[in-house]
Amino acid sequence: MAVSEITEKLLAAKKHKGVTFSDLEQLLGRDEVWIAAVIYRQASASYEEAKKLIEALGLSSEYIEALTDYPVKGSLEPVIPTDPLIYRFYEIMQVYGMPLKSVIHEKFGDGIMSAIDFTLDVDKIEDPNGDRVKVTMNGKFLPYKKW
Amino acid sequence: MAVSEITEKLLAAKKHKGVTFSDLEQLLGRDEVWIAAVIYRQASASYEEAKKLIEALGLSSEYIEALTDYPVKGSLEPVIPTDPLIYRFYEIMQVYGMPLKSVIHEKFGDGIMSAIDFTLDVDKIEDPNGDRVKVTMNGKFLPYKKW
Amino acid sequence: MAVSEITEKLLAAKKHKGVTFSDLEQLLGRDEVWIAAVIYRQASASYEEAKKLIEALGLSSEYIEALTDYPVKGSLEPVIPTDPLIYRFYEIMQVYGMPLKSVIHEKFGDGIMSAIDFTLDVDKIEDPNGDRVKVTMNGKFLPYKKW
Amino acid sequence: MAVSEITEKLLAAKKHKGVTFSDLEQLLGRDEVWIAAVIYRQASASYEEAKKLIEALGLSSEYIEALTDYPVKGSLEPVIPTDPLIYRFYEIMQVYGMPLKSVIHEKFGDGIMSAIDFTLDVDKIEDPNGDRVKVTMNGKFLPYKKW
Amino acid sequence: MAVSEITEKLLAAKKHKGVTFSDLEQLLGRDEVWIAAVIYRQASASYEEAKKLIEALGLSSEYIEALTDYPVKGSLEPVIPTDPLIYRFYEIMQVYGMPLKSVIHEKFGDGIMSAIDFTLDVDKIEDPNGDRVKVTMNGKFLPYKKW
Amino acid sequence: MAVSEITEKLLAAKKHKGVTFSDLEQLLGRDEVWIAAVIYRQASASYEEAKKLIEALGLSSEYIEALTDYPVKGSLEPVIPTDPLIYRFYEIMQVYGMPLKSVIHEKFGDGIMSAIDFTLDVDKIEDPNGDRVKVTMNGKFLPYKKW
Amino acid sequence: MAVSEITEKLLAAKKHKGVTFSDLEQLLGRDEVWIAAVIYRQASASYEEAKKLIEALGLSSEYIEALTDYPVKGSLEPVIPTDPLIYRFYEIMQVYGMPLKSVIHEKFGDGIMSAIDFTLDVDKIEDPNGDRVKVTMNGKFLPYKKW
Amino acid sequence: MAVSEITEKLLAAKKHKGVTFSDLEQLLGRDEVWIAAVIYRQASASYEEAKKLIEALGLSSEYIEALTDYPVKGSLEPVIPTDPLIYRFYEIMQVYGMPLKSVIHEKFGDGIMSAIDFTLDVDKIEDPNGDRVKVTMNGKFLPYKKW
Amino acid sequence: MAVSEITEKLLAAKKHKGVTFSDLEQLLGRDEVWIAAVIYRQASASYEEAKKLIEALGLSSEYIEALTDYPVKGSLEPVIPTDPLIYRFYEIMQVYGMPLKSVIHEKFGDGIMSAIDFTLDVDKIEDPNGDRVKVTMNGKFLPYKKW
Amino acid sequence: MAVSEITEKLLAAKKHKGVTFSDLEQLLGRDEVWIAAVIYRQASASYEEAKKLIEALGLSSEYIEALTDYPVKGSLEPVIPTDPLIYRFYEIMQVYGMPLKSVIHEKFGDGIMSAIDFTLDVDKIEDPNGDRVKVTMNGKFLPYKKW
Repeated sequence: MAVSEITEKLLAAKKHKGVTFSDLEQLLGRDEVWIAAVIYRQASASYEEAKKLIEALGLSSEYIEALTDYPVKGSLEPVIPTDPLIYRFYEIMQVYGMPLKSVIHEKFGDGIMSAIDFTLDVDKIEDPNGDRVKVTMNGKFLPYKKW
Repeated sequence: MAVSEITEKLLAAKKHKGVTFSDLEQLLGRDEVWIAAVIYRQASASYEEAKKLIEALGLSSEYIEALTDYPVKGSLEPVIPTDPLIYRFYEIMQVYGMPLKSVIHEKFGDGIMSAIDFTLDVDKIEDPNGDRVKVTMNGKFLPYKKW
Repeated sequence: MAVSEITEKLLAAKKHKGVTFSDLEQLLGRDEVWIAAVIYRQASASYEEAKKLIEALGLSSEYIEALTDYPVKGSLEPVIPTDPLIYRFYEIMQVYGMPLKSVIHEKFGDGIMSAIDFTLDVDKIEDPNGDRVKVTMNGKFLPYKKW
Repeated sequence: MAVSEITEKLLAAKKHKGVTFSDLEQLLGRDEVWIAAVIYRQASASYEEAKKLIEALGLSSEYIEALTDYPVKGSLEPVIPTDPLIYRFYEIMQVYGMPLKSVIHEKFGDGIMSAIDFTLDVDKIEDPNGDRVKVTMNGKFLPYKKW
Repeated sequence: MAVSEITEKLLAAKKHKGVTFSDLEQLLGRDEVWIAAVIYRQASASYEEAKKLIEALGLSSEYIEALTDYPVKGSLEPVIPTDPLIYRFYEIMQVYGMPLKSVIHEKFGDGIMSAIDFTLDVDKIEDPNGDRVKVTMNGKFLPYKKW
Repeated sequence: MAVSEITEKLLAAKKHKGVTFSDLEQLLGRDEVWIAAVIYRQASASYEEAKKLIEALGLSSEYIEALTDYPVKGSLEPVIPTDPLIYRFYEIMQVYGMPLKSVIHEKFGDGIMSAIDFTLDVDKIEDPNGDRVKVTMNGKFLPYKKW
Repeated sequence: MAVSEITEKLLAAKKHKGVTFSDLEQLLGRDEVWIAAVIYRQASASYEEAKKLIEALGLSSEYIEALTDYPVKGSLEPVIPTDPLIYRFYEIMQVYGMPLKSVIHEKFGDGIMSAIDFTLDVDKIEDPNGDRVKVTMNGKFLPYKKW
Repeated sequence: MAVSEITEKLLAAKKHKGVTFSDLEQLLGRDEVWIAAVIYRQASASYEEAKKLIEALGLSSEYIEALTDYPVKGSLEPVIPTDPLIYRFYEIMQVYGMPLKSVIHEKFGDGIMSAIDFTLDVDKIEDPNGDRVKVTMNGKFLPYKKW
Repeated sequence: MAVSEITEKLLAAKKHKGVTFSDLEQLLGRDEVWIAAVIYRQASASYEEAKKLIEALGLSSEYIEALTDYPVKGSLEPVIPTDPLIYRFYEIMQVYGMPLKSVIHEKFGDGIMSAIDFTLDVDKIEDPNGDRVKVTMNGKFLPYKKW
Repeated sequence: MAVSEITEKLLAAKKHKGVTFSDLEQLLGRDEVWIAAVIYRQASASYEEAKKLIEALGLSSEYIEALTDYPVKGSLEPVIPTDPLIYRFYEIMQVYGMPLKSVIHEKFGDGIMSAIDFTLDVDKIEDPNGDRVKVTMNGKFLPYKKW
């Protein structure tokens, strides 16, 4: 994935400052995944959010406005991701996509889970047999409109 | 997605009987998504699980053994799914894949979330502004081995 | 595009009966494009709608239930359509996609036009220089949620 | 989508000046979507239109001529767009493409809607349940010639 | 390229009867390429044209109506053709596409050659150094509309 | 399509000089499409042709030799062109490719039309109902050799 | 690669009869590779050649005419072959394609080796260190025409 | 095909010096196609071979070592080549790949022709009807090992 | 992956008989992976091996000869496998392919590991922390020939 | 494959110093393939490992930290590798993938070999008939979890 110049700047500053996504979550009052999405230019911040983020990373204010732009989103390369961490989520859909579709339709009727009115959280579940990653997706159900 | 003949048989029997995935969850003591995965031939059941499932659907015992086979998994077509419900999960990775990767690495180090030692649950969250779909993924963190 | 067997049955009956989509619009009180989408198994009808449609086409009641299923949607082949009529809509996005994105973002902020809470109408505009096709898409604006 | 250098220049000037597409529509007497298409180098302006546009954005006249060139059009990357706003229009064709084709053929006979003798408008429909995006496409019907 | 059943029927009848495309051109008063396009289900005939064609091939009248349907067009497989005769035309665009675009724009301005209001003829030019194939394409120029 | 540096230079000089392809046709005694192909580096000129062309464009002689190189040809991107003018020729093969193949085989036997021993001409046919683009391809028929 | 029904028939008859390609070469006076190409429906035989071939394989005369048809050629699947024997020839072009192009251009000028006026022979070179496969391609050089 | 910087340097020096591949064949005692492969960085030379080659091209010794590196080989772009000269070899496999496979298996049993223990020669066969290109491939037969 | 009819027959017989690959290894004196490759029609057996295998599976002798045919090999679908077990091997090449290449070149020089003169073994390594799969590949090193 | 700048630096330093992967194995106490993976930025080192590696290559300490980053892994281009050495491993999966899957399932049940809790070793087996490459993969078996 080609990461834009501003993303590289922000990630370098974050590393240099030793600030974690979790620290940023505290400072901005926004979830760490969403903040990471702003940094990767997949989400747009308000001016105030962008200002707090830029200041937390110790960067000059010239970067603020760029974070408020509405980005062209979604640009994994190649289109089927090869990074093993990201690929696993693609594989989950290959294997459990149709079962998931059936269960959602049975519970909700014809429609989809929104990927826009949507939140995504990551938790670390400590476990003596090996810690676990818990990913929670929460999207509004949108029923198909008839007309 | 070309669904196999046995999947069509099972889905037809389930519809005819009026049994929900949730009923099957009660009967088998397994999650409804996993049961749907067995029906879509993406997961393999034990002989006992297969027997209970076939009986619950009122089918003859000749179908039991097929559900214990280890299937060739993952066969969405085309490789980038076009069904809107399933596509949204692909889009989520396009948009939030890299942010998710960053947050997981920060919390756990270098490695991945397993898609094998893994569970997937769907809940319906009632909400006056529109019900919400909650999808919970829970996978073991696997750190990269050095050698 | 491989059209399913039930679609072929319904289209043949419609042709044989000499019923137009416009006639069906009158009978069902639903738009002709949506009714065509039901016939092509891209939308799901209620039992009552399916019953009216099947009767209008003079088919036996055994076909009713199939039209209430929630279909796997979207299956043009190849993924970039080659039929000239459908390709033109793909081309419109190639050419006007980014301009459209800019104008929508300027009017509404960051988000998308829903393709689910959505209607699509076709009108024939008579014109002495050649009749015109008017396609109207109307979808709810969904702003990106922050969390 | 790789945006050309001149497009970046024009968008930056537009942002800096605080001029909206709607303002430009007033100034040029051309629709805002078409003007955005000129800026994204998907449409060619006349010298006069280009001059007005360049002046409105406060840029030097050296940019005028470039906007009158006939561009190589259509260059979304990847060929199936991943930006969620643009993807929805691709999805609409996946789901409603064949129904749309059937309805247009029934109304007009064998042929296509032109994507060249064509206009595209965006309107904001205010709605207490959430504003709606209205996209109107209007293209000349072109009947297939026999020879 | 998978050829439909009716195409196979018509080609077999044409071979059996020993009728050439050129004979059909005489009988129908339509160009042989267009008639071949009807047989390959890439163009739709009027009832009268279909009737004449079916009779000329000595087939029963049940096939007439199918030839009046508006077909889903364009279905070479794979999308880049491998048959050497057809590939050469693809190669011509790879090599001469941009030069052709430049020359057409210089002669006509911004727009395209229509592939709908369009005819295609094939002639055999006898030549002692080897006969030559002459393919003439003739399409209406469609200027891009501004709005 | 990524155009090489020398092509950009030549096109800029041609625009600056106000020379048309048709003027160059007069000067070089070669067809304008072929000359455009030399400029786009899809054909190789002799030293004399290159010299005349470079002089006609008012460029320094250092560019002459480059035009005599044998180029790597054919480099539309993406492989299925998205520019509407060029796409129409691809579509013509999608729709009329098989009919064309049948007619050519009937007239000539098994073989192909050469794309190497080949000429391509563009004419403007003035027409009160809209001017027409006439594209004439003329290639040697090459019969398949048996051995 | 999906092999057509007639190819399967001919290959089965050839195996059953115990006839080698080399025997057929003797009988028909044509090279064994070309005969194999006829059997795989990649080349068309004359009536006499087809008759001799069908008789040599002990099949009924009803198959003769099919071998005189002009086939749709070239249909490896997938487009990059996975069979190791065939892939090696693809790899040879990946590795030696550009060097080969340079050497051919240096010897012949701008043009190509014809794949139509072309023969292909296979010889077995016995060698104590391991026998060697010798593949000889011989195609007419076609210089690019200028016009 | 993106050619590396060192390849461009060597080709430019070769052109400037007026040295042919055939001259280099004399000087190095290696075949011209192999030498071209070294220049295109598809084969690795010994130090002595690289030294001779660099000197023959009149370049400074700093380039010698790079030619002894083991390159990442095979990088035609796109993966199905569009250059007509190279494409013909791809087409030959599309058309004659399966016949070739059958003949090789009949002569040698199950296995492949090596593309590593392999040589490739080009000869010019003068012919009054048009010169011919003769390409000879010679690879060790590798039988499939059983274990 | 579409498995051929004979493979299905053999796998069904093997299951019905309760014979393991390991049992077959004992009976035939060939490795179980190679035997599985014969069953999946990716390797060809001698008549004696095929006879023993068919008898061990309790099938009639009519199947023997088919196992001695030289198959068209390699036909995973899609070309990037989606089955998680097989995908992991593809991923290993994505991640460790270039490092592996560097280490092999350093140890052996320029060349490849043969996939033809090659064996593949699977062992189960029992381990209290979870059993391990050991896959051993052993292929002849083939140095690139110079000529 | 586009190799990152730091990889190029490290490989150049390694070559200049004349250090082999095997030397680095001695110095770091890690396997040479893993070390090569760190250099190709496909694995992340600890600070101490990175320090030792950088010092062994005689580079300044500024490069240490970069080697501890968690890389975006897997980036062969094109996605089906064309380098012959790497392709052979892809081919092995095309040919032996399904047999391998069957044998692993028979020995272990439903699950996969981990590509994360995984090691990869290369050995040179000297052999008078030609040295052999031995590649040993050792991954934890992960059984599919039911839930």
